[in-house]
Amino acid sequence: MPELRKDPVIGRWVIIATERAKRPKDFKVEKEEAKKGPCPFCKGNEDQTPGEIFALRRSRTKPNQPGWDVRVVPSISPLLAAEGDLGRRGKGMYDLMNDVGAHEVVIETPEHIANIADLEEGQIAKVIDCYVERFLQLEKDKRFKYVLMFKNHGRAAGGGSLQHARSQLIATPVNPKRVKEELAGARKYFEYKERCVFCDIVKQELKQKERVIIDIDGLIAISPFASRFPFETWILPKKHSCNFYDIKPAQRRDLAGIIKRVMLKLKVALNDPPYNYVLHTAPFRRPKGGYWKTIDADYHWHIEIMPRLTHVAGFEWGTGFYLNPTSPEDAAKILRETKI
Amino acid sequence: MPELRKDPVIGRWVIIATERAKRPKDFKVEKEEAKKGPCPFCKGNEDQTPGEIFALRRSRTKPNQPGWDVRVVPSISPLLAAEGDLGRRGKGMYDLMNDVGAHEVVIETPEHIANIADLEEGQIAKVIDCYVERFLQLEKDKRFKYVLMFKNHGRAAGGGSLQHARSQLIATPVNPKRVKEELAGARKYFEYKERCVFCDIVKQELKQKERVIIDIDGLIAISPFASRFPFETWILPKKHSCNFYDIKPAQRRDLAGIIKRVMLKLKVALNDPPYNYVLHTAPFRRPKGGYWKTIDADYHWHIEIMPRLTHVAGFEWGTGFYLNPTSPEDAAKILRETKI
Repeated sequence: MPELRKDPVIGRWVIIATERAKRPKDFKVEKEEAKKGPCPFCKGNEDQTPGEIFALRRSRTKPNQPGWDVRVVPSISPLLAAEGDLGRRGKGMYDLMNDVGAHEVVIETPEHIANIADLEEGQIAKVIDCYVERFLQLEKDKRFKYVLMFKNHGRAAGGGSLQHARSQLIATPVNPKRVKEELAGARKYFEYKERCVFCDIVKQELKQKERVIIDIDGLIAISPFASRFPFETWILPKKHSCNFYDIKPAQRRDLAGIIKRVMLKLKVALNDPPYNYVLHTAPFRRPKGGYWKTIDADYHWHIEIMPRLTHVAGFEWGTGFYLNPTSPEDAAKILRETKI
Repeated sequence: MPELRKDPVIGRWVIIATERAKRPKDFKVEKEEAKKGPCPFCKGNEDQTPGEIFALRRSRTKPNQPGWDVRVVPSISPLLAAEGDLGRRGKGMYDLMNDVGAHEVVIETPEHIANIADLEEGQIAKVIDCYVERFLQLEKDKRFKYVLMFKNHGRAAGGGSLQHARSQLIATPVNPKRVKEELAGARKYFEYKERCVFCDIVKQELKQKERVIIDIDGLIAISPFASRFPFETWILPKKHSCNFYDIKPAQRRDLAGIIKRVMLKLKVALNDPPYNYVLHTAPFRRPKGGYWKTIDADYHWHIEIMPRLTHVAGFEWGTGFYLNPTSPEDAAKILRETKI
């Protein structure tokens, strides 16, 4: 029977429309034409991007030359300007500020490979090292409250036609609304239960098993109970951890492994779908007080992967009400059974 | 200079990226192939839909026969089931309920016309009459908290390939998250200012003029200050009004007129873009207390029209952070100057 399910963190209701359940073959994935011409993100073409901000390089190689494994460059069309002050101000009843921030592109491989699913586990671990490095650097700039790390893969997901694996980092002077909602939801839950809501999700999923895709030491991948999208997948650390960039080097390899397997399962099961992939982590410098002075219980970092399979999402934009034609239990089962 | 702007109702920040400003010709609107075969929504094909729930008909015509002007039928693939009880329950830490509700299609014309922009003003007024009638009926069912009225036009907006103007009504047993956020935001503003936030928006827009598209007696169409999407347009009554279905018959004709002109301007300026169109109105039976016991100051109905012009919206799904490449001031100016 179809159900209305409530997200336990932010309270959003989702319609799980099991009666017109959709299986992978029901989704049409449009194949895109690759962009012609040399790829600015490939090794040897370093002069086609702005100068690098950071790179993991083999020793004795020079900046903006080959020899790198992961390379971070400024976006050529930045959403936020790197220089200047915020100038927060009012205009009648409205509030606005200058768009100060940073917008960086993390080139995940020197080879021309489109999907993170096709990178080696060791290479993905280097990408994670690189994120941590950039988070630590950007955290030092007192103007920034948050760093968004996201990937848009495929044109329908906003990824453009350039088929070279990369992620983006945007440092913002305000917290994204979704992050604020999650923090508020997690705090409310903690005040009531004295437990982290994400820790409780992990516990219940491990017990119930039906929505678990991959369960390894320290990390799980699940189809969340109130998934908004078919085959939506979250990766969470099992142990409570508020800030992504606190991840220990030893755990980075495990995270790389589970990312590789999840992304490959999605690629195989769903015919290389377009997707968005967003890291959710606690804001820098968040206000502390009461409970939050001593304990970091108000957040639990995780990665949300959203394949873009449906156009059905018409009215969701305007209402915040989601319709998902594939139950999370079916999605998890299909992905568990997908051979990679 | 590019700006970060805050929505005064729900506090969402939007990046207005004026430095890569987009004009109408920068957006590529893909033309869709019309579905082949007879249209189930055209007059004469009444037997191809489920039996009608309501219709505005000429006298002496029979249900499910020609002679109607606007016709309401159940959706053939309803998102919510019309029968049954809610069965609200828990499953460990999760909450769920049965998907009880109603899902109706309002066929806006007996002729095969795709876009509401191309209907006569008098016909649009009849569609509005029909909405009011259905809201009043659905309000009587105590299981329902809200009725969503929305339109998905064009495939990219979730409208499918059937090119016949229609809107959808979904009665839900829970309030959509977005509506709850707007109510909470409007209440907070009212508690502080003792004024309706939407009334203040109307006042400031009428004074500043630069974001006004159409200003008629009783109603305005504006590009909102913190527009999420290029050419996003809101239509609001100037006088405070909480519930859409309280609209007086005399004002319905004016509303039809402004809808017609806004939709035609969008069609002409943007080459018949796909769009979503959502009515925001107060929930049925909302909790009252304090201020809210005697005054209906916590909401102000309006229509939000969102042309779907960009794929750029990749990470917005995950973060609630929007990027808009066309400033609302430019959009309003272009639409003001568009000849219809």
